[in-house]
Amino acid sequence: MPRVVDHDQRRVEIIAAACRTIARTGWDSATMAVIAAEAGYANGALKPYFSTKDDLLAAAFDHVYAQTGRRMAAATIGKHGLAALRAYCREILPLNDTTRDEARILVPFWHKGLTTAHLAARHEHAIREFRTQLQHHLTEARDAGQVRTPIPDHDIVGHLITALLGAQITATLMPHLETAHTLTAQLDSFLNLLTHP
Amino acid sequence: MPRVVDHDQRRVEIIAAACRTIARTGWDSATMAVIAAEAGYANGALKPYFSTKDDLLAAAFDHVYAQTGRRMAAATIGKHGLAALRAYCREILPLNDTTRDEARILVPFWHKGLTTAHLAARHEHAIREFRTQLQHHLTEARDAGQVRTPIPDHDIVGHLITALLGAQITATLMPHLETAHTLTAQLDSFLNLLTHP
Repeated sequence: MPRVVDHDQRRVEIIAAACRTIARTGWDSATMAVIAAEAGYANGALKPYFSTKDDLLAAAFDHVYAQTGRRMAAATIGKHGLAALRAYCREILPLNDTTRDEARILVPFWHKGLTTAHLAARHEHAIREFRTQLQHHLTEARDAGQVRTPIPDHDIVGHLITALLGAQITATLMPHLETAHTLTAQLDSFLNLLTHP
Repeated sequence: MPRVVDHDQRRVEIIAAACRTIARTGWDSATMAVIAAEAGYANGALKPYFSTKDDLLAAAFDHVYAQTGRRMAAATIGKHGLAALRAYCREILPLNDTTRDEARILVPFWHKGLTTAHLAARHEHAIREFRTQLQHHLTEARDAGQVRTPIPDHDIVGHLITALLGAQITATLMPHLETAHTLTAQLDSFLNLLTHP
């Protein structure tokens, strides 16, 4: 009987290996050969699944996005308004090894996205989804009287997204300046500012 | 008489050509040959000035940093406190063609900085200088009674830096979502929040 290959499972393993490799070595050193070795496959075994490294980067981004989304869903269960907004944002912030590794995948993705339209489009889709969710929790917080600032919602949501993306840079490039502690304090301070009328 | 070459001038021209090329084509397509052609020199003419592309990227970053610093100095002349803080931040935000081009150099720089310690150190030095200046203007704004929030200065300065870096991503990767108008509105809204006790 021929060996049955579970192609979906193999695809998942390759993406996970790519994420680990990119986070550890950086994008330039993470060649297809290195990623194949990390996944435990022979060189060339990736080609049927990802014909270019850009395809693999796109899949790695989707993986990070889905993983972040699952954490957000779990972290906000039973929470509403400002507490949900805070829990949601904390899952994007690079506060631990997992999320710092995600940041080390996001930065190369942004770099490639500057010149590769389909990667930029993927990113914009993800950010639009984040914005919708942030707006949902913000509306709840307004309705509950927790957020009382007259600053427009649009500015708050845009500002949160911008700061959360910027934190991917500060936490990975300047770990001496920005730590889990300072990034959390900055988020809490910003949310605190929103509670004042 | 042999032709006299002004090496400092040539170095400046090469850096300017590198910045234009990286901003236009992206980092990967901006080969030493393409940058030499942009500067009007023969292939190989860059080598005596920059032996590697990373050296050129470091010089391009220094150029952007110095250029931003000169704009900040000019924009804050005669301004104090919150007005100076606002003017200072606006020179980092990608609000026009010049600053959007700077953002397109910063993103590849961050990407390389993840795996190249001397580039990350250069970045941290620049950010520490920005933080010192932001703190200076914030202290003035506190002293003048313009900033009245009890949120710690450290959080405000850290948050501003993080948001300003994040704007380099949003403005270049998602120009449909974040424009000069929305980025300015977000900055003004944040500064407005700081004025409440």
